[in-house]
Amino acid sequence: MSKYTRNKWRVKLHEIIYEADTPEGKLFDVVLLITILASILLVMLESVQSIDENFHNFLNISEWIITILFTIEYIARILTVRRPIKYIFSFYGIVDLLSTIPKYISLIIGGVHALAALRALRLLRVFRILKLARYLGASNNLLNALKASRAKISVFLFAVIIVAIILGTIMYLVEGEENGFSNIPKSVYWCIVTLTTVGFGDITPQTPLGQFIASFVMILGYGIIAVPTGIVSAEYTSQNKSVKEKENTPQNKTMPVQLNSQCCVNCLAVKHQDEAKYCHKCGCKLHHE
Amino acid sequence: MSKYTRNKWRVKLHEIIYEADTPEGKLFDVVLLITILASILLVMLESVQSIDENFHNFLNISEWIITILFTIEYIARILTVRRPIKYIFSFYGIVDLLSTIPKYISLIIGGVHALAALRALRLLRVFRILKLARYLGASNNLLNALKASRAKISVFLFAVIIVAIILGTIMYLVEGEENGFSNIPKSVYWCIVTLTTVGFGDITPQTPLGQFIASFVMILGYGIIAVPTGIVSAEYTSQNKSVKEKENTPQNKTMPVQLNSQCCVNCLAVKHQDEAKYCHKCGCKLHHE
Amino acid sequence: MSKYTRNKWRVKLHEIIYEADTPEGKLFDVVLLITILASILLVMLESVQSIDENFHNFLNISEWIITILFTIEYIARILTVRRPIKYIFSFYGIVDLLSTIPKYISLIIGGVHALAALRALRLLRVFRILKLARYLGASNNLLNALKASRAKISVFLFAVIIVAIILGTIMYLVEGEENGFSNIPKSVYWCIVTLTTVGFGDITPQTPLGQFIASFVMILGYGIIAVPTGIVSAEYTSQNKSVKEKENTPQNKTMPVQLNSQCCVNCLAVKHQDEAKYCHKCGCKLHHE
Amino acid sequence: MSKYTRNKWRVKLHEIIYEADTPEGKLFDVVLLITILASILLVMLESVQSIDENFHNFLNISEWIITILFTIEYIARILTVRRPIKYIFSFYGIVDLLSTIPKYISLIIGGVHALAALRALRLLRVFRILKLARYLGASNNLLNALKASRAKISVFLFAVIIVAIILGTIMYLVEGEENGFSNIPKSVYWCIVTLTTVGFGDITPQTPLGQFIASFVMILGYGIIAVPTGIVSAEYTSQNKSVKEKENTPQNKTMPVQLNSQCCVNCLAVKHQDEAKYCHKCGCKLHHE
Repeated sequence: MSKYTRNKWRVKLHEIIYEADTPEGKLFDVVLLITILASILLVMLESVQSIDENFHNFLNISEWIITILFTIEYIARILTVRRPIKYIFSFYGIVDLLSTIPKYISLIIGGVHALAALRALRLLRVFRILKLARYLGASNNLLNALKASRAKISVFLFAVIIVAIILGTIMYLVEGEENGFSNIPKSVYWCIVTLTTVGFGDITPQTPLGQFIASFVMILGYGIIAVPTGIVSAEYTSQNKSVKEKENTPQNKTMPVQLNSQCCVNCLAVKHQDEAKYCHKCGCKLHHE
Repeated sequence: MSKYTRNKWRVKLHEIIYEADTPEGKLFDVVLLITILASILLVMLESVQSIDENFHNFLNISEWIITILFTIEYIARILTVRRPIKYIFSFYGIVDLLSTIPKYISLIIGGVHALAALRALRLLRVFRILKLARYLGASNNLLNALKASRAKISVFLFAVIIVAIILGTIMYLVEGEENGFSNIPKSVYWCIVTLTTVGFGDITPQTPLGQFIASFVMILGYGIIAVPTGIVSAEYTSQNKSVKEKENTPQNKTMPVQLNSQCCVNCLAVKHQDEAKYCHKCGCKLHHE
Repeated sequence: MSKYTRNKWRVKLHEIIYEADTPEGKLFDVVLLITILASILLVMLESVQSIDENFHNFLNISEWIITILFTIEYIARILTVRRPIKYIFSFYGIVDLLSTIPKYISLIIGGVHALAALRALRLLRVFRILKLARYLGASNNLLNALKASRAKISVFLFAVIIVAIILGTIMYLVEGEENGFSNIPKSVYWCIVTLTTVGFGDITPQTPLGQFIASFVMILGYGIIAVPTGIVSAEYTSQNKSVKEKENTPQNKTMPVQLNSQCCVNCLAVKHQDEAKYCHKCGCKLHHE
Repeated sequence: MSKYTRNKWRVKLHEIIYEADTPEGKLFDVVLLITILASILLVMLESVQSIDENFHNFLNISEWIITILFTIEYIARILTVRRPIKYIFSFYGIVDLLSTIPKYISLIIGGVHALAALRALRLLRVFRILKLARYLGASNNLLNALKASRAKISVFLFAVIIVAIILGTIMYLVEGEENGFSNIPKSVYWCIVTLTTVGFGDITPQTPLGQFIASFVMILGYGIIAVPTGIVSAEYTSQNKSVKEKENTPQNKTMPVQLNSQCCVNCLAVKHQDEAKYCHKCGCKLHHE
């Protein structure tokens, strides 16, 4: 640990990059968020042929600037964390790498199409910043309601898929290949399009019997949309209630646990309490200013 | 009963096939589930012409393997149950038979198209396994809410259909055959497509008056989707509440009734209590290990 | 009143036709319901050209049978009610007449197309029978919830229409006539199609800006569907609660008011209490068997 | 203030135009509402070529009448308010101006197309009248629920957009330009069309993999529609409850605060209490009749 207490700038940098409690940390997050969004915009614009032809140089230079910024950030992240290997092979480590290297690779093997779009993965990085925001914001309620109803919604979606396969097969038999229902997977696809009330209209039933079954599928889909809504609604109501009850309970009022966005330099664990001096996961000392 | 206590393997096999309380019973269910899903995948792939042409032999052999497995299972089910006739003519008995024989019939009269798709009925068998899972899982709440609101949703859907017929007839008069509304059933079909917010777009109103009425239909459909959602949501909330109240009532806490997945060898009744020694339906002795 | 107490058959007939408390009255309603549904099916089938060509005679004869049945019913209704004029000019009186005469008119001026479809109005008669069912069934809760939230849903739908007009005008300016948005009413129609998530696809934005605004419209529509659902859901929950509270209140338990489907021969008022001897609207004597 | 107490007609006019407590004020609002709706209808009809050709003179004259009425109203608003500058540069002041001048400009530079449609902005003026109606009506509950859930719905919509960008990019890579997914922004547009269950069908996946991912997108969209509905529903239920609790609290029953639609002549502030003698914002005297 002595190495880290000596390298004060490293600790400082760690706090800026990985945490959002200090003004510098917040500024870093905001700048990073803007850079990511700008880079996504670049990827999108580049894919539009007419824009790419007219502003190719501008897009290219902007892309290089962002790539270099991301490279610096990536290196800084590796330097300030104690176990770089763990970071590099973590989910966000891989995302960070993948969103940085495409431009370098294009230098060597030329502009590969699919490679360029890979940069859209950068969007995933937004979630890291938003994750930190969670401790500052207050949308925990909603997330709890979704978590509580996750199992039930899975069961529901599984049932929807089974129904789609059965009805899709029936439609395949009724309509047949001449009306666009050329095989069972396509029929099932149509059935999902219809059950979810999306209704593209690229494949539509032509026979009276097919239209009758389709009507049944649509009304079914219209009716069962009530199920996930009812689940989330009920869970959310009960979450709201228990939160309010907790707030009214005197014990809780005297012991509010304040979680901050501190991030352990050793194991990258977050959600530390404000009074915590040591990481609750690896026991490594946390650095307060 | 003596015949069955002597044939220990039969009782054992019955427990494995029809129940899910022993490790072997659970393993059997998992294997069966995978086999069913694999066979459904086969049916789907076979219907895709390009795949069927390239991998015909592989698909054919796989289908034979699955057919033979299902045949063995079907015979085992008949052997281990006390009243085979009752099983054979039960809903799942017929489904089991129908999902097994298509391949045998195709040997005699050649590959009939519709017959092959009949095998998709195998998917219905999934419900038997899931039915057992119900006692282990906990989605009873949702099912109760759906059951409680079934009558109201039926009334609602009936009203939707009446509205669709009336508005469909009006659209038939307004738009007429030249705009695709060629007869009243087709107009009603269009109306259901629109009311349920599916909106294929294969038939669309062309006259200004028709588009005005269509707007009304759409807003109506958008508004009334609130009804089934409101019903399920309210029922589910009250189900949740009564369950929680029950859990807090002291009498209930001291008398938890444990239902298991045991299945009577005589009458196939399920939902026996853990302490039950005799079937609650026919009085026949249950076999505990 | 003496005239009516003498004409016992008239009173009896009134009870059968207008009420649903006696077995004969229920039988009459069921037969009428089936006849209405059969006549609707006839109207639908007749509009399908291929069916009409092949089974013209059968359809024609069936139509005549139903028309004669409806004529008899219409005359019986006039004879058994004390104030025939009031019935004839009531909503259901007009519907009854309109659903009976088209076939007679077609005799004089030949098969007019629009006239035939007028018979679909017969479906409105279903509501009279269902209205009686309300006192026997139990969907009052839902109707109360809908009534309570009617005003709010109207405000909501009015807001949706204003938003559709504003966004429709913007889309007209952005996309213009060359992309199908040929005038503002059509643009507003497109906007309603999109806001309600129906999405026919007969008119779609082609310019990037138009697609961007369309995305906004869609997400808006996706978000605001929550509003009517939330309203109905909340109203229904509170309706459910107050009903349960009422049921638990001792006074209410001792005084259950039983409403029956009796219909006053004089003023056609319904919803009389079981113990009522005189009509609560006009004071005319009610006839119990 | 002396200037205003002398100019009694000015105070009176202010009350009629800006407030809705007197019969004259209400009449003015109703007339204005009808004029606005009539002018919107004019704008819409004018955009329909066939109507514009046949009734050009009638539409032109009607437009001039409405423009002159709006001009008079605009001048009256400036005259009766104490700080005309503040009104002119307020939101509604600009809307009032913009909805009045297009016809005058068309005199000078000829009928500019886009300019004519600008008049649709008049619809925004409806909100001013409806705003006053709020104090008379009772839809505050719903607005509070929407306000309370605004933050959560924003987070939700932000998440939807991120998901749309990621899935849109994936679809761009999978389907490619030959199937209509010609660039990433268009792919994202398609993804929003699908996620919101609108489903135009102008762009549809053609490859099996694309259809599989599309199915996933649709089921996702079908599932997450539950989230905003659940939020609004829960918020609205709790709003309803707290309102009812307030109504049952004795203190509140003895102190109902009556807000009226009076509007300060000085600062245009509204929502004054019935007993208020001075504006709660600027302290200027309010004029009661």
